[in-house]
Amino acid sequence: MNRRDMIKLSSFAAAAASAASLPEPVEAQDSQPGPSYGRWDHVELDFEGPAEGNRFIDVTLSATFQYLHRSITVQGFYDGEGSYKVRFMPDEVGVWTWTTVSNAPALNGQSGSFECVPAQPGNRGPVSVRDSYHFGYADGTPFVECGTTCYAWAFQSEATQKQTIETLSSSPFNKLRMCLFPKWYQHNRKEPPMYPFPRSGETNDYSTFNPAYFQHLDRLILELRRIGVQADLILFHPYDKWGYQSMPAEVDDRYLRYVIARFSAFRNVWWSLANEYDLLRDKSSADWDRFARIVAEYDGFDHLRSIHYCFHQYEYTRGWCTHAGVQDSRMEMAASWRADWRKPVVFDECKYEGNIASRWGNLSADAMTRRFWLAAAQGTYCGHGETYLSPEDILWWSHGGVLHGQSPAKIAFLRQLLEETIAVGPGPIGFTAIADDPVGARRPNGAVIFYYFDEHQAAEGTYFLPEGKTYTAEYINTVTLARTPLPGEYSGTAEVKLPGTPWGSLWFREKGIA
Amino acid sequence: MNRRDMIKLSSFAAAAASAASLPEPVEAQDSQPGPSYGRWDHVELDFEGPAEGNRFIDVTLSATFQYLHRSITVQGFYDGEGSYKVRFMPDEVGVWTWTTVSNAPALNGQSGSFECVPAQPGNRGPVSVRDSYHFGYADGTPFVECGTTCYAWAFQSEATQKQTIETLSSSPFNKLRMCLFPKWYQHNRKEPPMYPFPRSGETNDYSTFNPAYFQHLDRLILELRRIGVQADLILFHPYDKWGYQSMPAEVDDRYLRYVIARFSAFRNVWWSLANEYDLLRDKSSADWDRFARIVAEYDGFDHLRSIHYCFHQYEYTRGWCTHAGVQDSRMEMAASWRADWRKPVVFDECKYEGNIASRWGNLSADAMTRRFWLAAAQGTYCGHGETYLSPEDILWWSHGGVLHGQSPAKIAFLRQLLEETIAVGPGPIGFTAIADDPVGARRPNGAVIFYYFDEHQAAEGTYFLPEGKTYTAEYINTVTLARTPLPGEYSGTAEVKLPGTPWGSLWFREKGIA
Repeated sequence: MNRRDMIKLSSFAAAAASAASLPEPVEAQDSQPGPSYGRWDHVELDFEGPAEGNRFIDVTLSATFQYLHRSITVQGFYDGEGSYKVRFMPDEVGVWTWTTVSNAPALNGQSGSFECVPAQPGNRGPVSVRDSYHFGYADGTPFVECGTTCYAWAFQSEATQKQTIETLSSSPFNKLRMCLFPKWYQHNRKEPPMYPFPRSGETNDYSTFNPAYFQHLDRLILELRRIGVQADLILFHPYDKWGYQSMPAEVDDRYLRYVIARFSAFRNVWWSLANEYDLLRDKSSADWDRFARIVAEYDGFDHLRSIHYCFHQYEYTRGWCTHAGVQDSRMEMAASWRADWRKPVVFDECKYEGNIASRWGNLSADAMTRRFWLAAAQGTYCGHGETYLSPEDILWWSHGGVLHGQSPAKIAFLRQLLEETIAVGPGPIGFTAIADDPVGARRPNGAVIFYYFDEHQAAEGTYFLPEGKTYTAEYINTVTLARTPLPGEYSGTAEVKLPGTPWGSLWFREKGIA
Repeated sequence: MNRRDMIKLSSFAAAAASAASLPEPVEAQDSQPGPSYGRWDHVELDFEGPAEGNRFIDVTLSATFQYLHRSITVQGFYDGEGSYKVRFMPDEVGVWTWTTVSNAPALNGQSGSFECVPAQPGNRGPVSVRDSYHFGYADGTPFVECGTTCYAWAFQSEATQKQTIETLSSSPFNKLRMCLFPKWYQHNRKEPPMYPFPRSGETNDYSTFNPAYFQHLDRLILELRRIGVQADLILFHPYDKWGYQSMPAEVDDRYLRYVIARFSAFRNVWWSLANEYDLLRDKSSADWDRFARIVAEYDGFDHLRSIHYCFHQYEYTRGWCTHAGVQDSRMEMAASWRADWRKPVVFDECKYEGNIASRWGNLSADAMTRRFWLAAAQGTYCGHGETYLSPEDILWWSHGGVLHGQSPAKIAFLRQLLEETIAVGPGPIGFTAIADDPVGARRPNGAVIFYYFDEHQAAEGTYFLPEGKTYTAEYINTVTLARTPLPGEYSGTAEVKLPGTPWGSLWFREKGIA
């Protein structure tokens, strides 16, 4: 086989590309000898290999990609129907070469090259930690994390999945928490259309994988990538009736290597080792340590990594965690956790807007919005979910579909304010505590300083502004979204008259800069 | 001197009685040989004694009161102008006799008797702890504590003091926190009309007392008694410019004995050793231990005793504390503190409704009300205060006057609900935790069970009602005060449809009983 044969879109990827207007591969330019790919898009090598034996286990395949002095090795995977694949995400513009290593002669020692061209507009690259407590895209653009949750959307009807993408496209949410395994829980009592492993009766055949199951996940992750949403992939979870929370260790590890090989070249991937790791009774802390090592070792692109707990808070200071993905409603802890852990803190789950009987799923819209403000005012991030009862029993939190609540519009408003703030310049958002309550966040460069007053309603206040700067002030009602410029200019020790209403936020912006 | 001369109203008490329609002494009945007093009213013995020396220190005076087999000894005090007094609160109907002991021959060995007659309507006796976590009057009536705060009302104009009494009379508040020493703090920057000790320039004469200062406090406490308000007397506090927070130990102790001798016969007295004890830098824990012992030893009527902190929570398990009088905004801690301390928990200070710049004084009315509900739903009690800016700088929290806020009406509504509940029958209010949030309180006898939903808005819920009982259900909106009976009857595992709005409370009442 020659290189032109080997490098091709697989059939499903072609379908996804057509549905989703994916940018890769772009047409080869006349001046280029081979195919070209956009920076941070994924390259896919597709090989014909051995047809005999257990091709998921017996055949090893990896490829090393080289750009100037740098090389990155990634694992390949068997995708069924005789197709062995290697996926890669080039992060530099220019010519990359690659070589394969395999225990199968037909797959070993293959090599080739491709051109990486500048990213198309809207492709900002993968997200990583920036300024200790925040996130940014690889192209330097700040990423103001604003997440939501559709745990089991991958296992719903095609129509609902399509609707979920449409809803997300017009929502403020730029990260989605989703499970890779199907879910069995309240409002989630049906069999998935497919299983990750061949299944007969109640028995899983863990010696192999069901490629169609994972190809479907490929499509969904790429759809999220297309609309600019980070896919926060939950690798394990306890809401299971099929056995996936209690697989043998070697199956856990093989599963991890498989999904890493499949998905890590997708720039929008984040890894969450688990949802509620402490509810997986058959896993020990040694298991979680091993999973963390596997993810860190096999992911050639160093995607963001965290883990989510139910009762027992994970020790987020551990090195493998890039950020904390907490389940907690104690928003008042945000600043101290941030300071202790010295990492971004994301309240991935702090209860959801909705009206179901379960207390974690019946926050009012204002309560949900308030938690976003409390997180933001402490320089941390919050996560959304929605659980309104519906006649079809389609709840956004698990199934996706459409949003019914009032908080997304108010969260969008906050995200917009934060993005304007972040755009002012580099440097982390700091935290200003007043007395015993978290209320203020500011830019250390002093261009934007804001306070969130929560249930407080002062009619006046004294604010200590950085020396030598002059500010305008604006009062924002976070419930009505009314914005009221306050008269005059402020500097030094500023005495400010306030409306004296609760749920307010005061914004100082440096004149001529912010 | 004969007994008829000795037992008389002092001039100020006569004035107070006339102003306040005090019930004692009632007219002697024809069948009685001497004066008679209502049960739980105060008897005052008034003696002429030595005119030479330091009559506050050199002359000792006590009296032992006897009723059948019981005897109670109380200290007397010098009230100026040659008048030595002993005050006593009889708690049993019948004939009491008394005898004095003094180092002054003229005051020693005096004796007499009086008739204690049944209490007049509205006089329910002093309040003490009931059912471990609650309070009750001596006549058996439950006391649903509902406090407010006017720290320095005793040192305001006569007109403001009068207004404070009028305001309290039509308010839901049945306990008032007030300082015995004048206060120097923001919004409190004026000299009091009188000082507790003679004062010359910046020097206090601690060898004596200013009786007029304490006679004024007598009047105010009796005015509160008249309108049915408990006087939670704060014995020390740090907001001081005159030296009262740093007096020599023997002066502290003499001051305590003096105010106990004066005030403890007033049935509405509660003792608070301090406001923010931990801010009195010159006091050690040994001092607070000694103060606690003095109060417990010299108060013959065992009034309620507690202490209030700023940063360092007091160890409320200590024996001398009858209840906890916390300063804290962590309402979610109420149930666990109650369980740990096994005493009534009163959030005497959890911030105030108002709009001043200080964060402790700018809660919205709904936030203040919410804290009362959170306390009540955990079987504890909350305290109110109000700090709205005013042109005259009269803020209820310190000065009294009038109330401007919206929370008192909503708090009154809650108090009414709780009193109806408590009236159903004996037994403590229990606590029901659902998941990680405090939301429910119930009567263990099962006649009334209620839940507070806070910012949650479930549209349905399952409630586990005691077996063998049938209930009606009512949904209460704690913000609008709308009450909505829910259709049908409920028993066992009750599935309830709810309005799905936040700030709701669900009440189950046993049919035919509650």
